[in-house]
Amino acid sequence: MDDDSLVRLVEQLQERCLVGSMTVATAESCTGGLIAKLITDMAGSSSYFRGGVIAYSNEVKMGFLGVPEEQLLAHGAVSAQVARSMAVGVLRRTGADLAVAVTGISGPGGGSSAKPVGLTYVAVADAAGAEVRRFLWSGDRAANREATARAALELALERVSAGVESSRR
Amino acid sequence: MDDDSLVRLVEQLQERCLVGSMTVATAESCTGGLIAKLITDMAGSSSYFRGGVIAYSNEVKMGFLGVPEEQLLAHGAVSAQVARSMAVGVLRRTGADLAVAVTGISGPGGGSSAKPVGLTYVAVADAAGAEVRRFLWSGDRAANREATARAALELALERVSAGVESSRR
Repeated sequence: MDDDSLVRLVEQLQERCLVGSMTVATAESCTGGLIAKLITDMAGSSSYFRGGVIAYSNEVKMGFLGVPEEQLLAHGAVSAQVARSMAVGVLRRTGADLAVAVTGISGPGGGSSAKPVGLTYVAVADAAGAEVRRFLWSGDRAANREATARAALELALERVSAGVESSRR
Repeated sequence: MDDDSLVRLVEQLQERCLVGSMTVATAESCTGGLIAKLITDMAGSSSYFRGGVIAYSNEVKMGFLGVPEEQLLAHGAVSAQVARSMAVGVLRRTGADLAVAVTGISGPGGGSSAKPVGLTYVAVADAAGAEVRRFLWSGDRAANREATARAALELALERVSAGVESSRR
C-alpha cells in the first residue's frame, strides 16, 4: 500500500472495530478485491474482517450475494439498488456487523451516455439499515478504483464510529 | 501494481484465457483479495474473471465455499486439504473453468512450530481435477502475500496453458 492516507484510514477502521467489537465484510464489483486487500494488508485484520465476495459477474452477484435478477435487469449492475442488495446480502450471509459494497464502471471500457465511466455506487449496511452514495469519478481505471476504495473505507469508518458512539450513550 | 513481473504474469493469464475462452475464479484466505485485485487491475479482465471469495474466517470458508467443518477441525484452515476444498468449492459455485485458492500464514502473528509463519498452500482446480502446492516463505507479511499471489498466478497460468495446448491437439 503506497498511499499513506489509505493506510491511516484502514488503521482507524481496524482500531474502531476492535474498540466496538464489530466485524466487517465486503462485496466488491469494480474494485475487484482492492478494498479487502487494503484491509488485510494490515496485521491483526483477521480479528475483525470476516471476508467478502468479489462479485465481478452478475452470476456471482446473484449466487453469492442474493442480488435479485429482476433488479439487475431493471436497473443494471451499476445502480443504487444493486449496491444496496450487495451490501445487505454479504452482511446477512457472513454474519458480519457491518458490510460495504461497491459497484461502478472503472473504465476504460463499459461506459455509456446514461452510465459513464466513473459512475460508482458505494453502499454500507448494518443492523440499523443501509445507505448508498453515488459518485462520478473522472480519473483513469486505477484512480477510479482507488477513489472507490477510499470512499467505501470512509463510509465504513463513519458508520462504525457512529455505532461505537451510540453504544457508549 | 508496481511490480512489472506481476503485471506481465496477469497479462499472460488474461491473454491465454481469452484465447482459450476460459473463465477464472479465486478463493483467497491469506492474500485477502490481492490476487483478484491484481487480475482486475487490468482493463478487459471482466471478460474472463468471474469473481471470487475472500474467505478470511472459517465461517466464510464453510458457508461460501462449502469447505467441510470436519476438514477444518482435523487439518486446520492452513492445510492442503482446505486449499483443495476452497478451489473446488469456488470452481463449482461460480461455474468458472478454472479456480485458484490460497490459504497460509502471512504473519507476523498466527504461526506455531507445526505451522510457522510463511507456510502456504496454493491450489488450482478445473474439470480435470485439482492440484495443491506447499510453500514456506521467509519474508514479512507483505512479501509473503505477494509471493503467494505470484505462485497462484503462475499455477493458474500453467494450468490454463496446458488446457489451451491440449484443446489444440
